[in-house]
Amino acid sequence: MGSEFKNGGNEMIESGKELAVVAEKSKMRGWDLLLRVAAVAFSLAAAVVLGLDKQTTTVTLTLVPTLPPVDIPVTAKWHYLSASVYFVVANTTACAYGAISLLLLSANRGGKKRIAMTVVVFDLMIVALLFSSLGAVAAIGIISLKGNAHVQWHKVCSVFGKFCNQGAAAIGLSGVASTVFLVLVLVAILELHWKR
Amino acid sequence: MGSEFKNGGNEMIESGKELAVVAEKSKMRGWDLLLRVAAVAFSLAAAVVLGLDKQTTTVTLTLVPTLPPVDIPVTAKWHYLSASVYFVVANTTACAYGAISLLLLSANRGGKKRIAMTVVVFDLMIVALLFSSLGAVAAIGIISLKGNAHVQWHKVCSVFGKFCNQGAAAIGLSGVASTVFLVLVLVAILELHWKR
Repeated sequence: MGSEFKNGGNEMIESGKELAVVAEKSKMRGWDLLLRVAAVAFSLAAAVVLGLDKQTTTVTLTLVPTLPPVDIPVTAKWHYLSASVYFVVANTTACAYGAISLLLLSANRGGKKRIAMTVVVFDLMIVALLFSSLGAVAAIGIISLKGNAHVQWHKVCSVFGKFCNQGAAAIGLSGVASTVFLVLVLVAILELHWKR
Repeated sequence: MGSEFKNGGNEMIESGKELAVVAEKSKMRGWDLLLRVAAVAFSLAAAVVLGLDKQTTTVTLTLVPTLPPVDIPVTAKWHYLSASVYFVVANTTACAYGAISLLLLSANRGGKKRIAMTVVVFDLMIVALLFSSLGAVAAIGIISLKGNAHVQWHKVCSVFGKFCNQGAAAIGLSGVASTVFLVLVLVAILELHWKR
């Protein structure tokens, strides 16, 4: 009876260990999935916020000195600048890829190494894509906000305030998405390192 | 004697295996070092090419209609645009880090995992930094080349041709450096994956 109890105890310890391993695995996967959902949400939000960015306002111009000044309607749209187009395309790509990777990893319950590895490699590509689009829009944003006297590019945010604020919000959202993708690659590298 | 021969044969096989492992290790390290030297060289070249970018030219302007047009000297310098400053700083940082990582990895003949891992993590940060600076300068480059009628930003490359060509060369060089850093991270991930 003592032996049975001992065996039962061993079995309990073994199943406890297995549970801990499963819990640890699911915890890692849980973090990964949570980060991935955040990345999809933030890149989608960034693409939508800039993709819907449009402002029409009126500027008062004196065309002929002898006549009173006239109000002329002017419109700013996101697709007027190639950097914004690149930004929206990059964030849409990141969002779509993030969703596909979520499906792939959710379906990969068996933990096939090749699928997990492919996802990390594509995560890295998305990091490069998102950071380059972030740099492009931020550079244009700085000129829009401050202008540049050397090349005679005037600031446009003084006229299109709402347009610029929405653009800044999109940059912030994409900044979070880019950082989350970066963290996903970091976590994958550290995980691979620890598992060696 | 037969037994001795057999033992000698086994020893030869063992030492052969060890040699193969050493060769494989040095081969991987050789590739890594070669890529790293290329990354340092290209990021240095990109920083220097844009950092020395300056052009003075004359534009002919009619200031007063009754007087003949006058030639006015105008100068373009790399530090007039914040995107270019960011680009030079990013590439200098990448170059300096690349050199430090080369020293670290060369000194790490024992193959300490922690050092190798730290280098991969910083490589990833440099990928994000370089791609964002690449996006920033490319976005400004496109406006400089084509202008943008919507925001009334005129093209400047028609006046500063040499300046723009040198900027394009710097973008190309930094593009190679960024790709090499990306490949370094990729190789590290795949290597970690295979070693599991």
